[in-house]
Amino acid sequence: MSWTLAQRAHKMNPSVLRELLKVTEQPGIINLAGGLPSPQTFPIEAIAQATQKVLTEDGQGALQYAASEGYGPLREWVAADLRQQGLTVQAAQVLITTGSQQGLDLVAKVLIDAGAKVLVERPTYLGALQAFAPMEPQIVSVASDEEGVVAQDLRTQAPGARFAYLLPNFQNPTGRSMSEARRAELIQVAQGTGLPLLEDNPYGDLWFDQAPPAPLSARHPEGCIYLGSFSKILAPGLRLGYLVAPAPLYPKLLQAKQAADLHSPSFNQRIVFEVIHNGMLTSHVPRIRALYKAQRDAMLAALTREMTGLDVHWSCPQGGMFVWLQLPPALDAAALLPQAVKAGMAFVPGSAFYADRPQHNTLRLSFVTADRPAIDQAIQILAQLLKAQA
Amino acid sequence: MSWTLAQRAHKMNPSVLRELLKVTEQPGIINLAGGLPSPQTFPIEAIAQATQKVLTEDGQGALQYAASEGYGPLREWVAADLRQQGLTVQAAQVLITTGSQQGLDLVAKVLIDAGAKVLVERPTYLGALQAFAPMEPQIVSVASDEEGVVAQDLRTQAPGARFAYLLPNFQNPTGRSMSEARRAELIQVAQGTGLPLLEDNPYGDLWFDQAPPAPLSARHPEGCIYLGSFSKILAPGLRLGYLVAPAPLYPKLLQAKQAADLHSPSFNQRIVFEVIHNGMLTSHVPRIRALYKAQRDAMLAALTREMTGLDVHWSCPQGGMFVWLQLPPALDAAALLPQAVKAGMAFVPGSAFYADRPQHNTLRLSFVTADRPAIDQAIQILAQLLKAQA
Repeated sequence: MSWTLAQRAHKMNPSVLRELLKVTEQPGIINLAGGLPSPQTFPIEAIAQATQKVLTEDGQGALQYAASEGYGPLREWVAADLRQQGLTVQAAQVLITTGSQQGLDLVAKVLIDAGAKVLVERPTYLGALQAFAPMEPQIVSVASDEEGVVAQDLRTQAPGARFAYLLPNFQNPTGRSMSEARRAELIQVAQGTGLPLLEDNPYGDLWFDQAPPAPLSARHPEGCIYLGSFSKILAPGLRLGYLVAPAPLYPKLLQAKQAADLHSPSFNQRIVFEVIHNGMLTSHVPRIRALYKAQRDAMLAALTREMTGLDVHWSCPQGGMFVWLQLPPALDAAALLPQAVKAGMAFVPGSAFYADRPQHNTLRLSFVTADRPAIDQAIQILAQLLKAQA
Repeated sequence: MSWTLAQRAHKMNPSVLRELLKVTEQPGIINLAGGLPSPQTFPIEAIAQATQKVLTEDGQGALQYAASEGYGPLREWVAADLRQQGLTVQAAQVLITTGSQQGLDLVAKVLIDAGAKVLVERPTYLGALQAFAPMEPQIVSVASDEEGVVAQDLRTQAPGARFAYLLPNFQNPTGRSMSEARRAELIQVAQGTGLPLLEDNPYGDLWFDQAPPAPLSARHPEGCIYLGSFSKILAPGLRLGYLVAPAPLYPKLLQAKQAADLHSPSFNQRIVFEVIHNGMLTSHVPRIRALYKAQRDAMLAALTREMTGLDVHWSCPQGGMFVWLQLPPALDAAALLPQAVKAGMAFVPGSAFYADRPQHNTLRLSFVTADRPAIDQAIQILAQLLKAQA
């Protein structure tokens, strides 16, 4: 028996990130690798109450097949919430997805031909590279600095590109954010060149001192697709996200959605709507921010304390979940990982996040999953490991 | 602003089925169109109790990111259940999917290149055609009779085909099933030609008088991918299904799964496991069978009563959810649909289920969504409409 694989299947590689999620299941490892929200932020009691209400009031409706677009009241809520952030959006443009990861899959299907050019940040979210890969694009990294892609290089690369994939807020993996000025520059490039933008914003709500500037999609709605998520502000295990598309693109994305899984769970959509529709997030999200800020502070303090004299540099994220480390140029973070795991902590080697020419001396640390004592301990372990390399 | 769509996006067409699901939301229409399980079969109380247990015992685990393969105990349950049906399967071969629709999407990504030949029944499940379409196959209908594909034509078409997509039990849309003899013949073809089979079995548990013969996958495990679903025996709004793949194929399907939506909702997976792991289905499924059998009987009786002298023919399904009607050759069911909706009932025009050369005088009726008085009324409406055409 021989199975003939599609060409694209040969381009799909085992995921470093998935293997790392498995490491997190080993007891005794302090996991700074996976981007797992702190489970203490999950509103378990509110979800339990909402579930009972949903099942009692319309259990048959919540458990039946439903429209591919998503649950109407939840789409309305998303549209209203985004309007508060400055976006011009109607509920008819909102498509509820099975996590915002699915948004990447749908956009890839609708916009990427084999060989078509797609622009990404350098480095960028690994899951996006994986979602785009089956459509066999030519992925091109745009030169990036501590604010994300550089406008001049974006302009150079724009001709012929299907879209640029950008994470303006507290980027995964670097934690960096785009300033107001950078956003304005990039929009000018997008408008000047006709380059579509795919804006991914899973972390935007997780700011620490100051809300980020308005999304790119607020500035150029007809040229942007926007992805959002409930995974970081409620719970990832519900697998709910959404995309907002310009009206002309929406029907094709909807068709791709229907073909992919008919619709996202109606049960989960109603539960989420029930949990959030009375303003619950206005008190819940600030608690997540405060917790993550304290943990970021702990991580930055631990890095400052432990890494002295080691030629290690790191980002100072103003929100989100990640700190990005640059080790001395001669070191390869992937080679260090097995030793780190053996010593009791895990990170993600930075090379996984590059579409091309990986920078091997980088790594990503999450400050949201482990608590402060564990963060201190993990950074200490990492520093000892690095000292042993010197 | 101009968006360049991928080639495949031009091949994705608005779904008749989706538009029809919308019709079902109109009050006053008797919906024999959508394949919506009877909501009175949803075990609402069991799901409510399971949810409380899951959230109380390990809410943080149930709401966190999880492995792409699915929840371990649920994978074990699926493997054990399938072994009882004669399949040789380990839990390591089970991939939990976001409805079995997602299984079609993943298989398409891993096995279909643009232009590659894929074989389907004539007619076949519309959602499969939609799931395959984005990968741009050349879909070929295999000659089919009242037992599904004809072995001789399958053998003729096999060379070069990536796989044949088959629904052996109570097929959607026709309700037909493959006999033991037909299964044996088809397996001989598959083994003789090396043609892989994609076996879709969402309805297999819904038999009325007698369990169907063993699945194709039980006879030729290394040459078959098997798709199953919790939608018809528990509730579709949970969006949970699974696929079973030969070990050499599993890693690629898993990678496609991770790229598509990371994993199916861990919350839902744990709830379903909690609901079913103590043997609940052994009493629950027979109740669904009894209800559906009574409704099938009602529909067949109504057809016999109302369609006399109209040159209308229909299938007598031994399980599942659908009856297939052949109208007089001159009639086009799609043209009749608006009048039917206006008169108060809805069906699916059969042409939607053909990959090529649609037979326009066919239509699909579901006997599971509406209750018996409504079925009687809807068949009466349909008969009146047909009389008016004569």
